[in-house]
Amino acid sequence: MSIRLYDSLTRSLCELRPAQPDGIFRFYNCGPTVYAPAHIGNFRTFVVNDIIRRLLELEFGANKVKHVRNLTDVDDKTIKRARDEQRPLADVTQQWTAKFHADCASLNCLPPHVEPTATGHIPEQVDMIAVLMKKGNAYRAADESVYFKVNSFEAYGALSRVKERELQTGSALMATPADADEKEDVSDFALWKAHKPEDGANAWDSPWGRGRPGWHIECSAMSKKHLGETIDLHTGGVDLLFPHHENEIAQSQCCNGTPFSHHWYHSEHLLVDGKKMSKSLGNLYTLDELVAKGFSPMALRYALLMGHPRKQLSFSLDSLHAAASALRTLRAARAAIPGSGGSVDVSVPVLAALADDLNFPGALGALFTALNATAPADLHA
Amino acid sequence: MSIRLYDSLTRSLCELRPAQPDGIFRFYNCGPTVYAPAHIGNFRTFVVNDIIRRLLELEFGANKVKHVRNLTDVDDKTIKRARDEQRPLADVTQQWTAKFHADCASLNCLPPHVEPTATGHIPEQVDMIAVLMKKGNAYRAADESVYFKVNSFEAYGALSRVKERELQTGSALMATPADADEKEDVSDFALWKAHKPEDGANAWDSPWGRGRPGWHIECSAMSKKHLGETIDLHTGGVDLLFPHHENEIAQSQCCNGTPFSHHWYHSEHLLVDGKKMSKSLGNLYTLDELVAKGFSPMALRYALLMGHPRKQLSFSLDSLHAAASALRTLRAARAAIPGSGGSVDVSVPVLAALADDLNFPGALGALFTALNATAPADLHA
Repeated sequence: MSIRLYDSLTRSLCELRPAQPDGIFRFYNCGPTVYAPAHIGNFRTFVVNDIIRRLLELEFGANKVKHVRNLTDVDDKTIKRARDEQRPLADVTQQWTAKFHADCASLNCLPPHVEPTATGHIPEQVDMIAVLMKKGNAYRAADESVYFKVNSFEAYGALSRVKERELQTGSALMATPADADEKEDVSDFALWKAHKPEDGANAWDSPWGRGRPGWHIECSAMSKKHLGETIDLHTGGVDLLFPHHENEIAQSQCCNGTPFSHHWYHSEHLLVDGKKMSKSLGNLYTLDELVAKGFSPMALRYALLMGHPRKQLSFSLDSLHAAASALRTLRAARAAIPGSGGSVDVSVPVLAALADDLNFPGALGALFTALNATAPADLHA
Repeated sequence: MSIRLYDSLTRSLCELRPAQPDGIFRFYNCGPTVYAPAHIGNFRTFVVNDIIRRLLELEFGANKVKHVRNLTDVDDKTIKRARDEQRPLADVTQQWTAKFHADCASLNCLPPHVEPTATGHIPEQVDMIAVLMKKGNAYRAADESVYFKVNSFEAYGALSRVKERELQTGSALMATPADADEKEDVSDFALWKAHKPEDGANAWDSPWGRGRPGWHIECSAMSKKHLGETIDLHTGGVDLLFPHHENEIAQSQCCNGTPFSHHWYHSEHLLVDGKKMSKSLGNLYTLDELVAKGFSPMALRYALLMGHPRKQLSFSLDSLHAAASALRTLRAARAAIPGSGGSVDVSVPVLAALADDLNFPGALGALFTALNATAPADLHA
């Protein structure tokens, strides 16, 4: 078997292989921001990545895959939540980290081998920013924050093709509410944010004064620390492709002078009842809300795997009912297999579908076909 | 109810009360070094502290207790393990952190509200050492490491009464293998350890060059960050009383100029078959080893609560059999209580015993008495 994934960087199907001579496949997956319960759209990404992790371990061996997934535990959202609740930042982020771990366990997602936190890697982020300053890829602005100078990196936009679209000074596309007026160019982004009163106690010393790291630098620094300068596969939801992943590439490649990730994979959005999830539409579900409606976490896992991960998936309570029903059928079929202790080898066709760019519908179809062929006659009735 | 604990600092029974006007009880418990599975002696301490945590929540309210327990993820032992296994330090420590969490969950120990790591608090430790340098409580020696100057702190020895014993220059009691020759006084201890070749990549920048924090400073820094300068209760196994807790007091009080902890509580050693546990005696058990022998984790929890926590407890497979049997009897008695759905309020006498300096044998006795009185007659047969 060989695993082929559609690579967002080269826009082609690529075979996954560890690039380094130790044979270890280096896999980085952007994790959650821990300030609230993750919603089922987040979990679509994590379940897809759990399948990737399991496929990689089957292909290369369980001790030949290193899976790193970060926890964003300091940023505008986490700090705002702590301020609103008048609680220390770490209390809030540890509460939601514990909840995230419990939800992942319920959904049968394997924990990553290393799960680094942004606050746990301040020196590593400062080191990386210092190199970027020294090399001329970053500057300190009048607001005392440090910014990455996007036009210092020739290859900027290679992942998102943003240059082809409209990477120009003043481009509305690039402006985000967090942008400060003091930047040399509107497309530049913060590496180190100078302390502001609303940050409260959430600041650390740096060569550029007290402050906190920008969001993008954490993944570059933690990936480098735990996987090395060049990794094999970097994944995340499609919403992270631009600007987050584009900025990671810029930071890492300018700092290290080496390629950042051989391959990139992005899973698509989950829609609920055909619409983007939002609190105002009332269609943003957490795992707990679905469990309270009587669904099992494994039914949700099944529902999240019912469509191709690079296509938008429309979730609804009806589709969750269908998933729960399909799961019951699968389990009954497995239990009815005589003399096997409920175990049957369906691996060849199912794995072939998964290894073919994560063809989940094909894999589920192959699973039903194999179980039908193996199950006793009365199940066919 | 009021909770009274024997305070190792004042050597008297003290009533626990939150000292600060917000009414939050600040509770710090020294956690494990994550380089191997914890053994049942470690778990005695964590089970005792779980009872303390639960008692505090009953007394002050669940949202009025803040429980912090650290993870030591960089020290001589963790670095040696990573070197022996030729793996990065974080891979080793995250593996054993995950195992520790799973074991704690099996033993029904509540997770702490914040579980900070030493590597996640390098800047906070550096800050604290910088203050100690500035105040003259620390010095950089010829080996480029930074040491705490024990004779700069008048009150050193208040917890362990070590001065009464023999705190003298050259005292064999104070010399540990980790001591460097470059210290001004043999009783001084390392705050920042200069990088050595065997540390490999496990070093961070500091004002005193690359290196890593000494072990003691992590608890002072993490306690300050997550609980503030003065806490209500600090606990740990009796093996940590000297020098670890004595050194924490010295560092924190010299740095902050405020009392460090109002109360201290130390649980005693677990003996196995009457002897100190050791690998060479073959009497060092992990939870997994006992589960493999057919015991349940809850039977171990019960066994660890069969003696007063300030007395040495002799554990054996016989005592574990007795615990499993007692637990079965308790569960049968609870299940036989008519019309209560298996729930009976035995709280008054049981809690009274627990609140009386954790009188576990008294609490278990009260539990059996209450259940016997409530259970139907045929259970008395």
